[in-house]
Amino acid sequence: MTHVLKPKERVSKELVEKFKELPAATVYEAAGQLGMIDPAIRPVYPEAKVCGPALTVFCHVGDNLMIHKAVSIAQPGDVLVVSIRNDTRSGAWGEILTTAAVQRGVAGLVIDGAVRDSEATQERGFPVFSRALAVGATVKKSLGLINHEISFGDEVVRPGDLIVGDRDGLVVVPKERAETVYRASVDREEKEAKLMEKLTAGSTTLELLGLEKTLSELGLVEE
Amino acid sequence: MTHVLKPKERVSKELVEKFKELPAATVYEAAGQLGMIDPAIRPVYPEAKVCGPALTVFCHVGDNLMIHKAVSIAQPGDVLVVSIRNDTRSGAWGEILTTAAVQRGVAGLVIDGAVRDSEATQERGFPVFSRALAVGATVKKSLGLINHEISFGDEVVRPGDLIVGDRDGLVVVPKERAETVYRASVDREEKEAKLMEKLTAGSTTLELLGLEKTLSELGLVEE
Amino acid sequence: MTHVLKPKERVSKELVEKFKELPAATVYEAAGQLGMIDPAIRPVYPEAKVCGPALTVFCHVGDNLMIHKAVSIAQPGDVLVVSIRNDTRSGAWGEILTTAAVQRGVAGLVIDGAVRDSEATQERGFPVFSRALAVGATVKKSLGLINHEISFGDEVVRPGDLIVGDRDGLVVVPKERAETVYRASVDREEKEAKLMEKLTAGSTTLELLGLEKTLSELGLVEE
Amino acid sequence: MTHVLKPKERVSKELVEKFKELPAATVYEAAGQLGMIDPAIRPVYPEAKVCGPALTVFCHVGDNLMIHKAVSIAQPGDVLVVSIRNDTRSGAWGEILTTAAVQRGVAGLVIDGAVRDSEATQERGFPVFSRALAVGATVKKSLGLINHEISFGDEVVRPGDLIVGDRDGLVVVPKERAETVYRASVDREEKEAKLMEKLTAGSTTLELLGLEKTLSELGLVEE
Amino acid sequence: MTHVLKPKERVSKELVEKFKELPAATVYEAAGQLGMIDPAIRPVYPEAKVCGPALTVFCHVGDNLMIHKAVSIAQPGDVLVVSIRNDTRSGAWGEILTTAAVQRGVAGLVIDGAVRDSEATQERGFPVFSRALAVGATVKKSLGLINHEISFGDEVVRPGDLIVGDRDGLVVVPKERAETVYRASVDREEKEAKLMEKLTAGSTTLELLGLEKTLSELGLVEE
Amino acid sequence: MTHVLKPKERVSKELVEKFKELPAATVYEAAGQLGMIDPAIRPVYPEAKVCGPALTVFCHVGDNLMIHKAVSIAQPGDVLVVSIRNDTRSGAWGEILTTAAVQRGVAGLVIDGAVRDSEATQERGFPVFSRALAVGATVKKSLGLINHEISFGDEVVRPGDLIVGDRDGLVVVPKERAETVYRASVDREEKEAKLMEKLTAGSTTLELLGLEKTLSELGLVEE
Repeated sequence: MTHVLKPKERVSKELVEKFKELPAATVYEAAGQLGMIDPAIRPVYPEAKVCGPALTVFCHVGDNLMIHKAVSIAQPGDVLVVSIRNDTRSGAWGEILTTAAVQRGVAGLVIDGAVRDSEATQERGFPVFSRALAVGATVKKSLGLINHEISFGDEVVRPGDLIVGDRDGLVVVPKERAETVYRASVDREEKEAKLMEKLTAGSTTLELLGLEKTLSELGLVEE
Repeated sequence: MTHVLKPKERVSKELVEKFKELPAATVYEAAGQLGMIDPAIRPVYPEAKVCGPALTVFCHVGDNLMIHKAVSIAQPGDVLVVSIRNDTRSGAWGEILTTAAVQRGVAGLVIDGAVRDSEATQERGFPVFSRALAVGATVKKSLGLINHEISFGDEVVRPGDLIVGDRDGLVVVPKERAETVYRASVDREEKEAKLMEKLTAGSTTLELLGLEKTLSELGLVEE
Repeated sequence: MTHVLKPKERVSKELVEKFKELPAATVYEAAGQLGMIDPAIRPVYPEAKVCGPALTVFCHVGDNLMIHKAVSIAQPGDVLVVSIRNDTRSGAWGEILTTAAVQRGVAGLVIDGAVRDSEATQERGFPVFSRALAVGATVKKSLGLINHEISFGDEVVRPGDLIVGDRDGLVVVPKERAETVYRASVDREEKEAKLMEKLTAGSTTLELLGLEKTLSELGLVEE
Repeated sequence: MTHVLKPKERVSKELVEKFKELPAATVYEAAGQLGMIDPAIRPVYPEAKVCGPALTVFCHVGDNLMIHKAVSIAQPGDVLVVSIRNDTRSGAWGEILTTAAVQRGVAGLVIDGAVRDSEATQERGFPVFSRALAVGATVKKSLGLINHEISFGDEVVRPGDLIVGDRDGLVVVPKERAETVYRASVDREEKEAKLMEKLTAGSTTLELLGLEKTLSELGLVEE
Repeated sequence: MTHVLKPKERVSKELVEKFKELPAATVYEAAGQLGMIDPAIRPVYPEAKVCGPALTVFCHVGDNLMIHKAVSIAQPGDVLVVSIRNDTRSGAWGEILTTAAVQRGVAGLVIDGAVRDSEATQERGFPVFSRALAVGATVKKSLGLINHEISFGDEVVRPGDLIVGDRDGLVVVPKERAETVYRASVDREEKEAKLMEKLTAGSTTLELLGLEKTLSELGLVEE
Repeated sequence: MTHVLKPKERVSKELVEKFKELPAATVYEAAGQLGMIDPAIRPVYPEAKVCGPALTVFCHVGDNLMIHKAVSIAQPGDVLVVSIRNDTRSGAWGEILTTAAVQRGVAGLVIDGAVRDSEATQERGFPVFSRALAVGATVKKSLGLINHEISFGDEVVRPGDLIVGDRDGLVVVPKERAETVYRASVDREEKEAKLMEKLTAGSTTLELLGLEKTLSELGLVEE
């Protein structure tokens, strides 16, 4: 088995820049309600936001050897998406890796495990999304996979897919669909802005979303 | 079955205003240690506080249709108490509902599920207490109940009951007991203030709470 | 059984002062990757940090009588380490105990249960680490143990052992090893500072940590 | 506050006998998909089944005093429904209470906490549904409530309401609705039996439940 | 988007028959320690075992419409692998679906949610692996995906991949690797049988697995 | 640091034999309600019972090297008490270790992680208590500790302490207290047997345990 694959097509830089304006929840809706990463993977500090193509990493429990390898081959703008099999006791990322990642222009880290040195990470403005914080250490003794398709937070993530995350959560968008999802997101944002204007003017969501008809068809009984 | 009941008696506005000065923990103690909502339902941002009569909503998993209906009939000052059966994958409340709710003067949202657009919610100062944040979407396809008595966060909540919440957690006070609980809360706050003066002056809680006698009766053995 | 033992040897004040400069994650590594307290025990506010010798307390579920006793005999600088058997429904510590503890110079509270009055606690700058916040009350009816060796957060904690905690988590260092661990921590901090300089200058962690050799020995296959 | 209320109307014995033939899942459906107790409350042994009117008990965490009181006033056929606030460390029920309950003709125990002496309980054929097993002890020091309306396992349970449980889970049926729910359950069982005959003969659930129309209306696209 | 894809290549029937002799743990090891489904997905009764090609289904939370569709197109021997997004409150599979599935020769069900009618399922000998049992109902109102690649229990599952499960857990083997994994499994079983003979004769695992050398190289210090 | 310490004093074989007659819950009560291991550590099959002196093992997450070492030095009757830091993904014990352990007369395994080959383990009648079952593998690359004092399942366990476990859970008894606890257990069993006779004859637990007085002193109000 080849452990480290070459990155292939990835979502374009121009598109990534455009997605940075969009909330994750909007992107999720625009993607047809597909691609929600497990909401238990949260930003380490509330302001953390992440947006970029996935560089996928698959590690053995308690072992971050492949993360070091991945940082060394990351391209500017990459988002590291690291499966460490939900191990929340091992702080698999800390200040040293943050320093190396910032130096290389890595756009952020998303991990289904734990991290440490969270204060330093926040000070450097490096966005991290994790299941937990933990002082626990890792060993560097086992191989894993890089740039393979992986299951991450209940979704399939392929290298080059777009990762978008903010306080509400994380979304993965398949690279082939990114352009379409972007346009649908912008449409949605515009529609929502108009909706909110009307709501502020006193309309109800029942009227604006056609829900009165739904309620009536379902046979709503009111006192 | 009648899905939507008329609101009946609710805790008075004057009393609600008075309760706004009180910490939730004090109210809980003054209520005879009854009414603690499951502590896993947390404020979405630390400063969020909520106080007002409950407008209860019972939804199907993954479906927020009845929340839209509830917002449309809410009265100013109401606190939406939404049971969506502990579904933490569906962001059942977002910026559109916040906008509609703020417009109608809704006092806050308390939900045993997930919400999204949390940043916008915080910016508008609308208090939300939830189990989780999630980008997940909901459908609008199933009826539920409004203004029925419900089980919420391990407590019975009836429409019109008082909901009080802050960083420490949420408490429900039956409307009939609210006046009594208010007076007991004020008494308790006064007693605690005096206790704290004495503690600052050097007394121990053992002396002030009569715990030396308890320890002695229980047969404490010290080296 | 003797419920309350006298504190015996504890880690020295001078050493405690020195440890205050160190991150918990560094201390954990320097201690040979031993002593990690369950990461689910978290600071109540992000800035909370704790450092000092343990005064151990073992309580019955839902009962904080022994905490009151412990505060009354605490010495300045002590860190209360309270096992209440993972009870996350009872707010076993609140503003009254904070007031008493601050007056006596207690250095902080670490508890495997819940606390309340968290806002007041933060305002007074008293560091608290807990599993949860809860408005729930406790009774004061059962004896427990003070200054006994206890199991706490998956680690053995003996009275006088050093407790170090920050946003990343909590670590216990046996008092006999504290001096050694301090020196190893300082070494580690220095080495890490140098590493980070080199990383900022463009080196990779593979080069600096000798991981290229590891990868090669393990038979890494790259595309 | 009156701690112990008199039992008022309860679901009739005749109806209870009839419900004993019905699976809990059928009753839940027939009840309009209302009344599901938290599925984490499970039978202690797979064959345990329970059916009867609720005698409700509300206890302090770690304290089973009110359970003893409840057993002493239980009537034959009663099902004890005990809220101990999700405390899963205290074995709040054991062989002594089983012995007392069997002697009085109690029909079973349903508790949102833990029990012990599970082997003896199974040998006596006494049905118990709990969140956990635990050797942990309880104290007998605090009052609670008996025959009050309580929140239990995410549902409101009132004294006299019908409790039905088997391996699939527990359902509460309001006493006023029990007759109606029974008839709907029998209808449902009959319809399902016919459905299953047709399925065995080769029909699909799509045909029998009219789902082909649903799929087509929703716009299903097949390759 | 095409909701229902045609099944493409699947692991051969001959190979499936051979895998039925093998424990899941052996298959996992032989697969290079890849493919472990989340261990929280457990057999509904201890004797349940499953082996066959995956027919993948992706459902909306609380909605089992697509499961009905999937059963209607299943081929004999297929294992239904159903993602319902970890919804453990909705009993998404019951006796009716079991009856339909058995009639069509479906080999089993694997679901990251809940099922009901578990007793009937066991009586029919139909193997089910789920996260939970629940009486909860589902609606039939939303489309999902069939025979798409999905993330299931922390692993990627593609239609036609081999699913192997027993009391120890579930494993997914990519169809292209199944032949190789089978041979490695048989080798492993043979080696283990020999190991166990030697162990029964008194050898230690240290000797047989070469672990004395490992311990010595790592610098083991013994008293 | 010395990784492997010599076993020192252990609870005597005669006493172990006597304890085999006692339920874990009785032992826990007789021990003064101290020593309850986390109830989430459960027997792998319901009939599993364990009783014997602890041989303690502390492993790195995902690494079972020290378990192999421990089995090789175990004495007949020892109970392996293995902390693998709550790692429930790695099946750290399987049929090979069971075979080796049975050959050496090991009395059972207690682990705060996962095991595999559970069917073979049950067939050989070897008692195992674990948090989970998992097919997951472990590496054999890191040293740990043997016969050190450890924290296990929220309790301190020292080598030679008595471990008693059955379906209700696990208890650790310090070796120095074992004789006293045994006598108190026998007393308790006798008292309970008499209590149960009286209960069967119609007495209530209120009468027999003096709880009527307690209720009256606490001010019970009955309708």
